[in-house]
Amino acid sequence: MAARRNNSKGRPRNAEATRQRILAAASDEFSRHGFAGARIDRVAGLAGANKRMIYAYFGSKDQLYEALMERKIAEWVEAVPFTPNELDAYAAARFDYMQAHPEVRRLAAWRTFERSKPTTAERAIYQTRIDALSAAQRAGKVSAAIPAADLYAMVARLTESWLNAPPALLATSRSPLGFKRLAQHRKALLRAVRLLSEPR
Amino acid sequence: MAARRNNSKGRPRNAEATRQRILAAASDEFSRHGFAGARIDRVAGLAGANKRMIYAYFGSKDQLYEALMERKIAEWVEAVPFTPNELDAYAAARFDYMQAHPEVRRLAAWRTFERSKPTTAERAIYQTRIDALSAAQRAGKVSAAIPAADLYAMVARLTESWLNAPPALLATSRSPLGFKRLAQHRKALLRAVRLLSEPR
Repeated sequence: MAARRNNSKGRPRNAEATRQRILAAASDEFSRHGFAGARIDRVAGLAGANKRMIYAYFGSKDQLYEALMERKIAEWVEAVPFTPNELDAYAAARFDYMQAHPEVRRLAAWRTFERSKPTTAERAIYQTRIDALSAAQRAGKVSAAIPAADLYAMVARLTESWLNAPPALLATSRSPLGFKRLAQHRKALLRAVRLLSEPR
Repeated sequence: MAARRNNSKGRPRNAEATRQRILAAASDEFSRHGFAGARIDRVAGLAGANKRMIYAYFGSKDQLYEALMERKIAEWVEAVPFTPNELDAYAAARFDYMQAHPEVRRLAAWRTFERSKPTTAERAIYQTRIDALSAAQRAGKVSAAIPAADLYAMVARLTESWLNAPPALLATSRSPLGFKRLAQHRKALLRAVRLLSEPR
């Protein structure tokens, strides 16, 4: 905040630029190596900063990671709004975002893998969405065949069917039976989400 | 093979027991740390063997990993037969197996995560299954709404909707809106697979 307030003085602008460079480097490092494997030395090297600066700006490895995740989650929530009444549109947007942001996919995969403690904000996002989906089911806008929490988890996983598929299955997918082109798979994804969610 | 042929002499039986102990230790180590992070010293410690013995039995870290994966894949294929005409039963069996074998889940997740080179055997398994599913669609036993390769990938991911869910979503799932009991989620999973695959 101080940086923004004093932008006219020049130096705080540099401070903000350094902060951004450190966060970009942290995104690279944490998405490659996970939280446990990430090294602050490498973040410093990538950011063209030194370790002391990183600690001065962010406090600790934990806090740097938290600042990064907070920003990534905010960007993702902003870019892929949850639309319970049009789950297929949500799935398509989520698929496109994950496709375009491999580092977000890897950060998320590491979080699951390392069983990171969820933040209060993350939990609130999911809870709000499940509540909204449940309301859409009660209003008859979404099929109630599958309970809201399950349906939400399923739709999320479906958007990653190929993105997170085992390497051997990916190898197969290039066969004539596979999806060949992304557009074909995207169509199949939308179809699947409709089959699970459209009221009939 | 030599070990089996000479079982009556006693020493080869020990050799086989050592081999088994090493593989069990390798399963623990590779599922915890992935291929890159695994340490042969720790495998030796866990197996009550020494590093030289491991290299004598398996050749290298690479070959130990391959021997382990070969066995794990064979066990999994044996325990969860693919039944293209009853995809819901397959999904239920896959879910139960993954539930009961967290180390298999982690080994598989690492493989995806580390982008391991798929083995010829693995690729053949997937290709055979996608071919069989495609045939079931042509025969009208399975809905052709979703192409076979996509459907296979989707059903596999659906069985892991909660098992591989983000920690924050898992935290939500214990809410009254969540699945609370595994049996409820298992039911929702079967329902989802039927919606995607039942001919109508």
